[in-house]
Amino acid sequence: MPQLRRDPVTGRWVIISTDRQKRPHDFRFERAAIIGREHCPFCPGHEAMTPPEVMAYRQNGGAPNGAGWDVRVVPNKYPALQVEGAFDRAGEGMYDRMNGIGAHEVIIETPHHDRTLAAMSEAEIVQVLWAYRERMLDLQRDIRLKHILIFKNHGAAAGATLEHPHSQLIALPIVPDFVREEIDGARRHFQIKERCVFCDIVQQDLADGRRIILENADAVVIAPYAPRFAFETWLVPKRHAARFEEAPRHEYEGLARLLKPLLQRMDRALEDPDFNLILHTSPFGDDTASVYHWHVEILPKLTRVAGFEWGTGFYINPTPPEEAARVLRSVRL
Amino acid sequence: MPQLRRDPVTGRWVIISTDRQKRPHDFRFERAAIIGREHCPFCPGHEAMTPPEVMAYRQNGGAPNGAGWDVRVVPNKYPALQVEGAFDRAGEGMYDRMNGIGAHEVIIETPHHDRTLAAMSEAEIVQVLWAYRERMLDLQRDIRLKHILIFKNHGAAAGATLEHPHSQLIALPIVPDFVREEIDGARRHFQIKERCVFCDIVQQDLADGRRIILENADAVVIAPYAPRFAFETWLVPKRHAARFEEAPRHEYEGLARLLKPLLQRMDRALEDPDFNLILHTSPFGDDTASVYHWHVEILPKLTRVAGFEWGTGFYINPTPPEEAARVLRSVRL
Repeated sequence: MPQLRRDPVTGRWVIISTDRQKRPHDFRFERAAIIGREHCPFCPGHEAMTPPEVMAYRQNGGAPNGAGWDVRVVPNKYPALQVEGAFDRAGEGMYDRMNGIGAHEVIIETPHHDRTLAAMSEAEIVQVLWAYRERMLDLQRDIRLKHILIFKNHGAAAGATLEHPHSQLIALPIVPDFVREEIDGARRHFQIKERCVFCDIVQQDLADGRRIILENADAVVIAPYAPRFAFETWLVPKRHAARFEEAPRHEYEGLARLLKPLLQRMDRALEDPDFNLILHTSPFGDDTASVYHWHVEILPKLTRVAGFEWGTGFYINPTPPEEAARVLRSVRL
Repeated sequence: MPQLRRDPVTGRWVIISTDRQKRPHDFRFERAAIIGREHCPFCPGHEAMTPPEVMAYRQNGGAPNGAGWDVRVVPNKYPALQVEGAFDRAGEGMYDRMNGIGAHEVIIETPHHDRTLAAMSEAEIVQVLWAYRERMLDLQRDIRLKHILIFKNHGAAAGATLEHPHSQLIALPIVPDFVREEIDGARRHFQIKERCVFCDIVQQDLADGRRIILENADAVVIAPYAPRFAFETWLVPKRHAARFEEAPRHEYEGLARLLKPLLQRMDRALEDPDFNLILHTSPFGDDTASVYHWHVEILPKLTRVAGFEWGTGFYINPTPPEEAARVLRSVRL
């Protein structure tokens, strides 16, 4: 059973796998190659290589765990958390731990091994977002869970180990530190201004224009004012709402209409960069309706230099966001 | 002039380089190769390849910026911050920025291109630590500066771009977020317990034994209870003190006597892993004497999977610290 352990200084929870004893040999090397097409567990016809599916979209009504799906959600074969069991919260002297209860799922975004989000149709992207939503609504009925983290690692530099386009979902019994910090920050802003900090950002950046990359009726793509990474971008819905999973369908459509050209522009300008895509949305239990604002962050992994920030927690970004926005705006698709 | 900009949500400061316009091409690839011996600007005889030295240890009294040094400190050729100028703190609507005033130096740890910390003598390691101290004492006379970050990137996966053993020093006019969080956490513990959280950790872990890797009269090497990274280790002085730069010399000697065998054990067990080494010490101005406790953290970069945490801020560690400590203890040197 994996464990959640809390750092006694910062209060940060981490997941510690304790399910098997590893030999020193297991740690020696970077997990070398990304798994390509031949051994891909996510390609149609290989459904038996994954645990049985949790959910799938099949337009033509095929049977579960067979081919014919458009989006398929399966438990992670090597889960960081387990669904069954009790928390058994406990102290070890000054330390705090609990069992790693939660869910770890994979959203296989397309049956096509090479079809990245940038290459999908808008309708296909909407299906992926809808799958996020459905899994979130289902999992939040489990009252043990407090937060769902949905993210996508694209490329080896972003931590991907499988090539086939997929996202991951981790449902947690705690609210991660970085989510808490963002919400606390948004709450501070609200307490002073009685306005949402993200709404203020959207308003100021639209008026300013220099950091705007794309915009439509539903959302805006900005290069944030103080980005951690070169070419970091945020997709922010214009309508204030704390929870992704409660958005009306047209907002997913609006988001897809921006996400596709954004990724195409990144691919063109930066030559298919590796990136992390992270859905920022409210924890379940919190009363964040006024203060928080869901959005999507895309963090390209362009330089190894970023290894520094990763160790130190302090960020040096070689690219002003105004410059990144100008470059991405000027791409001819 | 580089800029410091504050994220309006989290309050996190980042450094944004604004000194030259980059072309899109500049961002396309990971900075490929690490610079090796032939073009090494840190090897003796190549002193003219760096900016003029800030400080050096020369046992035989040679002239500055010539060969014959044991440790040499130079300004970073591509500094993230600049020493000259005024802050010009300013708002841009809701955003906050200031000029990137500060220092960015490189501590060249040895004249020998291949002599890693693990291969140095204890006396040589003490010289490196003493150079850290001297630079900190010198720079903190500049009242514009609030914190000094000293760190070492060893290997490409840790963000190193030069092979020759070196550390970096960044002196900042702000206290970075992750330092503030650690101090705030330590302060919370002190307010409840009237004890230092790091002293409590040392005491409990010494009594427990499972996470202890090495120990001597001055310090202890532990695998922390809730590590973010596999084989993360902390070197913690036994005597409570907030500031590295005020430690008596014998504590640096004690630290060196643990750091060398720790790195040797890591090299043996994990086959020369890449790692970040980070000195955690108190900001200058803060009254942290009772609450904070300086220490050194070593964060190995063993798996690409860590790319995930880097994007999400949430950590999954495949190795329990008790297991990491057991592996490192059992290495035969």
